[in-house]
Amino acid sequence: MGEEVVKNLILLGGVGSRLWPLSRKLMPKQFLKLFNKKSLFQLTVERNKFITDNFMIISNIDQYFIALDQLEEINELNIPFLLEEIGKNTAPAIAFAALESTKEEILFITPSDHLIKDIDKYKKAVKEAKDLAEQGYLVTFGINPTEPNIGYGYIEAENNDVLHFHEKPDESTAKEYLKKGNFYWNSGMFMCKAGVFLEELQKYSPEVYEEVLKSYKKRQKINDNQIRLKEMKTIPDISIDYAIMEKSDKIKVVKAEFEWNDVGSFDNLIDEIESKEAIEIDSKNNFYYSDKLIATIGIEDLIVIDTPDALLISKKGETQKVKDIVNKLKKEKKELTEIHTIVHRPWGTYEALINDNGYKIKRIIVKPGKRLSLQKHFHRSEHWIVVSGTAEVQVGEKIYLVRPNESTYIKMAEVHRLNNPGKIPVVLIEAQVGEYTGEDDIVRLEDDFERDLK
Amino acid sequence: MGEEVVKNLILLGGVGSRLWPLSRKLMPKQFLKLFNKKSLFQLTVERNKFITDNFMIISNIDQYFIALDQLEEINELNIPFLLEEIGKNTAPAIAFAALESTKEEILFITPSDHLIKDIDKYKKAVKEAKDLAEQGYLVTFGINPTEPNIGYGYIEAENNDVLHFHEKPDESTAKEYLKKGNFYWNSGMFMCKAGVFLEELQKYSPEVYEEVLKSYKKRQKINDNQIRLKEMKTIPDISIDYAIMEKSDKIKVVKAEFEWNDVGSFDNLIDEIESKEAIEIDSKNNFYYSDKLIATIGIEDLIVIDTPDALLISKKGETQKVKDIVNKLKKEKKELTEIHTIVHRPWGTYEALINDNGYKIKRIIVKPGKRLSLQKHFHRSEHWIVVSGTAEVQVGEKIYLVRPNESTYIKMAEVHRLNNPGKIPVVLIEAQVGEYTGEDDIVRLEDDFERDLK
Repeated sequence: MGEEVVKNLILLGGVGSRLWPLSRKLMPKQFLKLFNKKSLFQLTVERNKFITDNFMIISNIDQYFIALDQLEEINELNIPFLLEEIGKNTAPAIAFAALESTKEEILFITPSDHLIKDIDKYKKAVKEAKDLAEQGYLVTFGINPTEPNIGYGYIEAENNDVLHFHEKPDESTAKEYLKKGNFYWNSGMFMCKAGVFLEELQKYSPEVYEEVLKSYKKRQKINDNQIRLKEMKTIPDISIDYAIMEKSDKIKVVKAEFEWNDVGSFDNLIDEIESKEAIEIDSKNNFYYSDKLIATIGIEDLIVIDTPDALLISKKGETQKVKDIVNKLKKEKKELTEIHTIVHRPWGTYEALINDNGYKIKRIIVKPGKRLSLQKHFHRSEHWIVVSGTAEVQVGEKIYLVRPNESTYIKMAEVHRLNNPGKIPVVLIEAQVGEYTGEDDIVRLEDDFERDLK
Repeated sequence: MGEEVVKNLILLGGVGSRLWPLSRKLMPKQFLKLFNKKSLFQLTVERNKFITDNFMIISNIDQYFIALDQLEEINELNIPFLLEEIGKNTAPAIAFAALESTKEEILFITPSDHLIKDIDKYKKAVKEAKDLAEQGYLVTFGINPTEPNIGYGYIEAENNDVLHFHEKPDESTAKEYLKKGNFYWNSGMFMCKAGVFLEELQKYSPEVYEEVLKSYKKRQKINDNQIRLKEMKTIPDISIDYAIMEKSDKIKVVKAEFEWNDVGSFDNLIDEIESKEAIEIDSKNNFYYSDKLIATIGIEDLIVIDTPDALLISKKGETQKVKDIVNKLKKEKKELTEIHTIVHRPWGTYEALINDNGYKIKRIIVKPGKRLSLQKHFHRSEHWIVVSGTAEVQVGEKIYLVRPNESTYIKMAEVHRLNNPGKIPVVLIEAQVGEYTGEDDIVRLEDDFERDLK
């Protein structure tokens, strides 16, 4: 046999809730296009193209369509997805991917939401890890700490050998680690043969192994690029660190020399992107993110994150506490942690412009070749004005085209569907008129895959 | 002759630019409904109803229709207006009102943008001033200073006699004034006979008197409640203080014991209204104004004012500097100092919801009995969807009704008009589609009064 092929497994779980209000449950951190109009996910794929052409992505269903969109934007159309019914942390996710691979295949397991710079040093570290993986080791990547960060787990190492994994330390312990010099941040990247991973999982976490295997047998292959994983409820929720790394004797560590940022908080993020310009009077050292004009007087060291429905203002150095805000909101105003005013759907996006008594105005954008499900509403009529693209509209049995600068009307309770048969997006303005315009007044008359996703 | 009637002259000039971004040139401070949904202007009228039923308002044309709207809301339908072509400060404004009055009429001249509490003490001060005005004096109202404020002029007094007017002092001088005890804030309220005012103006500022008189002769009486003042360009821009008060020997001062707030800055405003609730982590003593959710971490003593197109964050105690921001903006982004995203028009309001390439979406609200001018556009078609009320639409020679949940369409270059013949507001969504959707693509085909006001 020749040199083994590396397969990059990209893990798409997680929300990155400490980047709220930018990140939401349905628009997680890895998809935010903050880096020269690219997302961390897109940058991850582009970076790993230097390593391999063999990708696999494991994702939940909420994130699948955003990921597909963003892959299309960078011309990656054929990456296979494993779609999890429920997120169950990294150990089960990697196990599914290992089961979908040959035993000798080397998995390069990476998060999708980190920034890495200096591609040559990155390739060098990956090469070193690959050599160790080929010898049958489970390889982690240790990041040289630049500060006594209390947000990461640490790997205590001697050359390539792991002495201990350490959980997130307190501040004085973190300072000690930094002084000692042989403690590394646990980056969440791993490399190993698929077969080795499964053997070690079976050995150290047999229950996880068995439950994943049971679920894997019920998988549903939708097409070459899409496998849906089912009956996942009984699988334990456990990370690769707990399930294997802290127990196995086949662990090695590679020390990364590249620049690494997990963009875990706004304090991290603002190292990487530029502030919006503001009119500042007696103000300094602030970071601003907003679509609107910002003016400040007498403030310093603040981070201001302004979105259409929520405004965050934080002292620098304290943005870890955003998670406390998100936890509070989950109880009081859950929807603010889940969606943005712009909502992404498999067929495109919609955005409520006005939601008032008796009427609601939306801008709807349908992607080329996509359509909404056949549906009807009991409490509202809908007026559609196409402002760009050409829509195909079905109302009852009739199907007709609505061109730019044309409009149509759907009476209450009429069955209808919106379709974009063209090559450019359909942009339309929808005016809903009725006593009740809630999103739940919708009867879908089709039992298709997309329906399940709404 | 019996007791003289007091006429309350309300001065409506000024923008209150230190309350930007809430106040704008076309939505000045006195019209902001911040006080239990009432404006300072409405509160001024309601308060002065305890003094008199005889009102007169002097205003510029921009502010006239907002004032009319707000008067209608408090059921004051018959107050006469003097409409100035150009704002020329208080001396000319009062002179016009004096010319419109009998010589013996007592003018109670008040700004429209102050808050006053304790109506009994207010009435008492006004009664005292009236007695002096009846004796032929020009009476000012001195406010007992509660702090060494550097934002006001001071009146040095001995009983009812004015010893000196002093300009805005520096901080140490202001502290001295406070200690001395016979220095009062100049409130901008005055009382005097119309004839006495004109005599003193002619005596001490004869040029102002002559120019006002010349302009007054060209006035145009539109109806019983509306006189338009014209040819004002050559009138000097001068305050009553400079033109008369600092020169005349007929000045008296009445010491006010009521609570008074000129709401001149956000530091003043936040004493009077409640902050929006926010999710605060390690934050305290902040004031928030916003339509959206606000969350903060580790901040204190800040004032946060969030509007749809501009966000202001200021340290408490420094909000006087908002004027520096407004001055900068006037050079760089003038429109942000002039209009809000909701624009008030004589016939109602409009609000741009989206302004994108090739189309623009607006919500238009037309008041009952009002109509827009007959017009056409060269570069856009318009789709109108009525969501509330009944609109009468003229397109070319055809006139027809558009009911709630109905729509209509106006082709590019077609002459059209929107009218609300009904008893409730017409709310409609307008989708403009065309290569160019600027507000200046409008040809008005009618030469009516409202046209001049656009």
